[in-house]
Amino acid sequence: MKFSCKKEQLVHAVQIVQKAVSSKPQMPILSGIYLNAFDNTLELQATDYELGISCKIDAQIDEPGAIVLSGRYFQEVVRRLPGEMVEIVTSREDHTLKITSNTAQFNLLSLPAAEFPVLYPLDGNTTFKIRDNVFRELIKKTVFACSQDEARPVFTGGLLEVTNSDVMMVATNTHRLAIKKEYLDEFNGEIKIIIPSKILMELARIMVAEVPSDVIVNCTRNQISFTFDNVYIISRLIEGQFPDYKRVIPEAFTTEIILNTDAFSSAVERVSLISRSGDYNVIRLSFNEKSVMITSNNPDIGKAEESVDITLSGKELDIAFNAKYVTDILKNIDSEKIYFSLNTPLSPASIRPCDDDTYNYIITPVRTS
Amino acid sequence: MKFSCKKEQLVHAVQIVQKAVSSKPQMPILSGIYLNAFDNTLELQATDYELGISCKIDAQIDEPGAIVLSGRYFQEVVRRLPGEMVEIVTSREDHTLKITSNTAQFNLLSLPAAEFPVLYPLDGNTTFKIRDNVFRELIKKTVFACSQDEARPVFTGGLLEVTNSDVMMVATNTHRLAIKKEYLDEFNGEIKIIIPSKILMELARIMVAEVPSDVIVNCTRNQISFTFDNVYIISRLIEGQFPDYKRVIPEAFTTEIILNTDAFSSAVERVSLISRSGDYNVIRLSFNEKSVMITSNNPDIGKAEESVDITLSGKELDIAFNAKYVTDILKNIDSEKIYFSLNTPLSPASIRPCDDDTYNYIITPVRTS
Repeated sequence: MKFSCKKEQLVHAVQIVQKAVSSKPQMPILSGIYLNAFDNTLELQATDYELGISCKIDAQIDEPGAIVLSGRYFQEVVRRLPGEMVEIVTSREDHTLKITSNTAQFNLLSLPAAEFPVLYPLDGNTTFKIRDNVFRELIKKTVFACSQDEARPVFTGGLLEVTNSDVMMVATNTHRLAIKKEYLDEFNGEIKIIIPSKILMELARIMVAEVPSDVIVNCTRNQISFTFDNVYIISRLIEGQFPDYKRVIPEAFTTEIILNTDAFSSAVERVSLISRSGDYNVIRLSFNEKSVMITSNNPDIGKAEESVDITLSGKELDIAFNAKYVTDILKNIDSEKIYFSLNTPLSPASIRPCDDDTYNYIITPVRTS
Repeated sequence: MKFSCKKEQLVHAVQIVQKAVSSKPQMPILSGIYLNAFDNTLELQATDYELGISCKIDAQIDEPGAIVLSGRYFQEVVRRLPGEMVEIVTSREDHTLKITSNTAQFNLLSLPAAEFPVLYPLDGNTTFKIRDNVFRELIKKTVFACSQDEARPVFTGGLLEVTNSDVMMVATNTHRLAIKKEYLDEFNGEIKIIIPSKILMELARIMVAEVPSDVIVNCTRNQISFTFDNVYIISRLIEGQFPDYKRVIPEAFTTEIILNTDAFSSAVERVSLISRSGDYNVIRLSFNEKSVMITSNNPDIGKAEESVDITLSGKELDIAFNAKYVTDILKNIDSEKIYFSLNTPLSPASIRPCDDDTYNYIITPVRTS
């Protein structure tokens, strides 16, 4: 194998596939990055069996071939190379790869390419196209609501539900639920799959092109692939039945409050300084006609209270929440004002932006004595 | 106690004294910040017995008094207060302190002020004045060379040596030694004290006023104090005999090399990517008439080599060093070029900036087979 390519492109490609390199690999080969040089193209691949990423860049190939290098060292070395171009050639004497750039030369030990589980194109029947910025928005507005508890796998992923041109992402840990809706240009049919939250977070990090571009999504019963620009990503899906989230959303509310997002968010953050070292991080909200009094109390530290102006229609109400569940959603709302909708101190409430009916968040109160 | 003050000033004062709040206090009271309100002044203090810091700010005192608050919570609370002013008043009913700013109100549990070991002004015979930026430069150019090994205390501190108008800071871990010299405006006499590196680093962080200002230094046999602006810092000194560092500095060299600082630094950083996971992080330098070849080798990873242009007078030489000891000094040299001066592969070398004879660094080579 012998090729040369631009350093910046190689650095970028290594950064992308690096996210699929396992830090605790099941097998040594999975700690590596697979390089395949062919047809004026260098392809890099990495996989930990859950997530696989491929990235292709232009290269001048003098001799085609494939090899695997330690992901950790390859990334650190290419990042720091001094030149604009990089030349990479396998040594005939030993199992090393010679990397040359300007005055610097590295000989890195290689692993046998034949042992690497090369990624394959997913060949599912179901395929659709979505803009990368739209998909990123679906992820960012919901993924934080996923559970971290591996004992109940369906809650550790986000539900992607497509019904004709409607696409929704739903995430819940059973105490709170986030739903974001967007639209597809053209799709007929239904999809309902659960994508691991770890994969969703990586996708949101990788899909950051300056110009919005299309992502081709392809899925089978237990796998999903994403193709965009020069990148191909394949991931397992979470199997199991996602709960019927529509049943969780209250149909009507007896109290409707309008709040300034920033003022409410800052006040909740401040008051929760006192509660957050407690087991449940409980803040109390006392809504009256003109304002909400936010309070917390921790016998070891002290107490806090702060009042924020509101517009209320309906009944006045006292209710308590896990402060983190409240601040999590407020950080994700871009609108100046929110609706906070309530029924009783024990029934689920809804928080949503005033000017965007495609986003909703359901939060269960904490029962306090 | 009842007073009000500007929030920004209070935040700044808390940040300064916070550095002396122990994270693992010997006694609960040492986890606190002492507040003392008197004569239009609020004084904050914290100490872990090794280091004590006091900071005074202007305040409107309605009722003088003193109290101690949990350092951790007080800092987090004041940092996030919403208003420009803060009002603080002790509650008569319980042991709490009420902090009010704009719409927010906190009641924090307090600790009894009588238990706090209040700082005293150090009354040593030896006192001198130094510019804060000069003192910071002495620290920054040397403190990194201190040892972390508590078993040999004298090497965990920096030697401050004043001889009339010459002031030097010297630090060593016995494998490398950094010396920086500056000048005092007016002082007659001699001082030789060892200041703990932890304290030196805190001082460099605190002494960052925009306009250079004077620091009054006062010392006794085992304590030192620094007074500047509204801040007073008192610290223990390290007792013991600092080694005679002058004996370590070679009087002459048989090889004198001139190198570009950045080019050499980047090359050493790159080559050491391969060596740094090894036990001794060894890089080899082969100096010939025109260039130095920097190499490293790790049987588990591979090898690296890079050549940098040099100007050499004297004998050609092969020598090996701990790469970290080389990059540490290069990061601290602001000059475009350095002198690298050598005798034999086993004798100490010197690295120093070409245009600044007040800074010197002695480094012991690694013996390789």
